[in-house]
Amino acid sequence: MDFKTLSETRYSVRAYSGEPVTEDQLQYILECARLAPSAVNLQPWKFYVMTSQTDRELLQQCYKRDWLSQAPLYILLTVQHDVEWVRSDGKRHGDIDIAIAAEHICLAAAELGLGSCWVCNFNAQLCHELLKLPETEEPVVLIPIGKAAADLKPSEKKRKDMAEIVVRR
Amino acid sequence: MDFKTLSETRYSVRAYSGEPVTEDQLQYILECARLAPSAVNLQPWKFYVMTSQTDRELLQQCYKRDWLSQAPLYILLTVQHDVEWVRSDGKRHGDIDIAIAAEHICLAAAELGLGSCWVCNFNAQLCHELLKLPETEEPVVLIPIGKAAADLKPSEKKRKDMAEIVVRR
Repeated sequence: MDFKTLSETRYSVRAYSGEPVTEDQLQYILECARLAPSAVNLQPWKFYVMTSQTDRELLQQCYKRDWLSQAPLYILLTVQHDVEWVRSDGKRHGDIDIAIAAEHICLAAAELGLGSCWVCNFNAQLCHELLKLPETEEPVVLIPIGKAAADLKPSEKKRKDMAEIVVRR
Repeated sequence: MDFKTLSETRYSVRAYSGEPVTEDQLQYILECARLAPSAVNLQPWKFYVMTSQTDRELLQQCYKRDWLSQAPLYILLTVQHDVEWVRSDGKRHGDIDIAIAAEHICLAAAELGLGSCWVCNFNAQLCHELLKLPETEEPVVLIPIGKAAADLKPSEKKRKDMAEIVVRR
């Protein structure tokens, strides 16, 4: 499918069938994330793949939504603050790099017919504590992945008009 | 082409043929960016499409590389700090949203056989001044786009091994 169609196909899935993600699917998704570009190619990221009941429950404490437990697999992306590129004016670029890799994950999942959801509104500090993450790492985005529930209808994509966001000069 | 191939195809192009980007190509790229997800769907972005010699020269002052002038078109992405989503702990998410849209641009360009380059190491403050951008906007990434120079060979993609970035739990 072309990239525009893929961009249209990806949407925030908040109901899952519970069917497991296969190892081949997971490998494909992770490989697409691994290929993502990053500032100065520093790749300041870790991808935590959570399938155990114990770890999934810890993450559920950091983002309390009933639907979250339906997803069979979560990928938590952390930025390594001791690795990320910092511009000469002090602007840190780790979040930018994590966002690129995270979107590669969601797009790869969509291509495979899997649902995913960008979750940023979780308790990142609690997550850091519960998972005992290294001091230098910050959890940035949590992505549940799985087959969407059979009765789920894709939400309509509401976007600003081109005229509102594009400035030609 | 599948998404993994597309991820492999995109690389940082730093030599351009100078051939113009067609209006159809530009529309496709912008549409792919418009479809990008963002936190709380706030879409806190502006895409400045720069084709005029005057504006291209202003941007060249903010990132002094000989090759930059070869690209026929630049897209400058700014974050709107008065629109972006801010999490309850104060973490701003605009950079994350901009990164998603910017990567959509680079991937769409690659699909069309066009080169692009993520430029973050530019003088953002000077850029803000020279382009007389609104107070609330910050330029985050500058993307030159165009056909790669005929003699350019794609750079080899050096990435960390999967074992170094993936943690299974």
